[in-house]
Amino acid sequence: MARPSEPPYVAVAGAGDASPAMLEAAAEVGALLARRGAVLVTGGLGGVMEAACRGACEAGGTTLGILPGSDRGAANPWVTVAVATGLGQLRNGLVVRAADAVIAIGGEYGTLSEIALALKAGKRVVGLGTWEIRGMRCAENPAAAVALALA
Amino acid sequence: MARPSEPPYVAVAGAGDASPAMLEAAAEVGALLARRGAVLVTGGLGGVMEAACRGACEAGGTTLGILPGSDRGAANPWVTVAVATGLGQLRNGLVVRAADAVIAIGGEYGTLSEIALALKAGKRVVGLGTWEIRGMRCAENPAAAVALALA
Amino acid sequence: MARPSEPPYVAVAGAGDASPAMLEAAAEVGALLARRGAVLVTGGLGGVMEAACRGACEAGGTTLGILPGSDRGAANPWVTVAVATGLGQLRNGLVVRAADAVIAIGGEYGTLSEIALALKAGKRVVGLGTWEIRGMRCAENPAAAVALALA
Amino acid sequence: MARPSEPPYVAVAGAGDASPAMLEAAAEVGALLARRGAVLVTGGLGGVMEAACRGACEAGGTTLGILPGSDRGAANPWVTVAVATGLGQLRNGLVVRAADAVIAIGGEYGTLSEIALALKAGKRVVGLGTWEIRGMRCAENPAAAVALALA
Repeated sequence: MARPSEPPYVAVAGAGDASPAMLEAAAEVGALLARRGAVLVTGGLGGVMEAACRGACEAGGTTLGILPGSDRGAANPWVTVAVATGLGQLRNGLVVRAADAVIAIGGEYGTLSEIALALKAGKRVVGLGTWEIRGMRCAENPAAAVALALA
Repeated sequence: MARPSEPPYVAVAGAGDASPAMLEAAAEVGALLARRGAVLVTGGLGGVMEAACRGACEAGGTTLGILPGSDRGAANPWVTVAVATGLGQLRNGLVVRAADAVIAIGGEYGTLSEIALALKAGKRVVGLGTWEIRGMRCAENPAAAVALALA
Repeated sequence: MARPSEPPYVAVAGAGDASPAMLEAAAEVGALLARRGAVLVTGGLGGVMEAACRGACEAGGTTLGILPGSDRGAANPWVTVAVATGLGQLRNGLVVRAADAVIAIGGEYGTLSEIALALKAGKRVVGLGTWEIRGMRCAENPAAAVALALA
Repeated sequence: MARPSEPPYVAVAGAGDASPAMLEAAAEVGALLARRGAVLVTGGLGGVMEAACRGACEAGGTTLGILPGSDRGAANPWVTVAVATGLGQLRNGLVVRAADAVIAIGGEYGTLSEIALALKAGKRVVGLGTWEIRGMRCAENPAAAVALALA
């Protein structure tokens, strides 16, 4: 979908509540995506979303946060550009649309909705310690997840 | 959510392509919902959606079809009131929002997205030959599915 | 857009706060649309929306209410089928999409957004005591408005 | 709405087809917004949107393009971060929500819908050679428009 000269956009989907191991994995995914020149797309809030954004920012990357609420102030501090949608969970579909591929981390329902919508749209979906749904790829670690997402 | 004097709204989520057994089950679910006075909400297209609408209509019920496209003409002929949204798969989230409970039939990705969004929103989700996701109830047959959805 | 055998869908756009004369006009528009077999689409709330729905219902018609909030209970009592969207004012765009033509009554900003979106989409827009925007038709009374909308 | 340490987000609404004078004004608005540290929000396409983005980029600013289609490739080349929404004209409402204030340039229906939605949401709306709707401020030139938008 991207023009040749454009960066890929990759979404990281994951819960606001996550274990330290999940957060560490998310930060590494964000950093690796940034080093590959990708724009990171998330739901803009805390937990996995914030960790991925922090990793990307610290590696010099750009992050797009597509928020459920109408208040941009809810974005985590590592969001470069925030979109306050006021759409609630319907913004999950916008996160998927805005991205070329999705990396799902952890096991929350919102994450599952993003996996399903991305598979429905024929986009590449990579999982890291998350739901296992036919059609998605499972990665053993952040490096493998990023490699699969950008393959 | 419904006012006491109002009918419940129940969504039937399912694929446009479905087996004869799935279609028969969907039609029976639609008929049973109509007999219980519920308004049937679907994505308005064919397959499971059409079978459920047909069952509901033949039992004297009302059906709401929330279409992905902008053309109301795409609605199946058993849709009482059609909403042409032009939202594509984001309309799945509207199907869930419009309903108090969701009955999922069959195993497509769009259906999975509706299951996930409904569980995320704290709504009752009943499955009939579909994905098995923690938090949803599994029914053995249409009568059990409708009973669980309206419990 | 409608299949030949299908009813037209006509939106009535107008404010929740309206003068008695506006409400009377809205009720008459609703009744005339119902007598012509049209499905009435509104934003589902009070004022002009409620008056139009009441007029349509009392004339035996069907009304579709596309609500801004997530609670179906906010619909006025004359809404036949309610869609709780949770989209806030973005639901104005869905009201326009769901309809073949728009009759605007009174002068509120939400009404103006519906006029503009309908004109942008190339739909017929009729005004009754409302904004005068190039491209829309102005009607002198409810009968003329309905005749223009269904022409 | 913005946190004190955050930049303001200002939308520039305008048509894809515009006169050279309009385009020049839009580019100057974009440049002035960038120099004031604002993030520029547009619908991401050509004409006024592209001119404003070009002005902002050349002045070192950041631009957010909220596209109607599903293909990010439709963004003009001066969009820093693109959101491919697939929502069609409903994305106009997202442009408004994402911004703290709106500067409208030129006289198209889509622009009018953004003016109306922003006024409905209680946001500041400044016009430059566009519709004159009660509640919005009219500016004589780009500098005045930016000053009013950021006041």
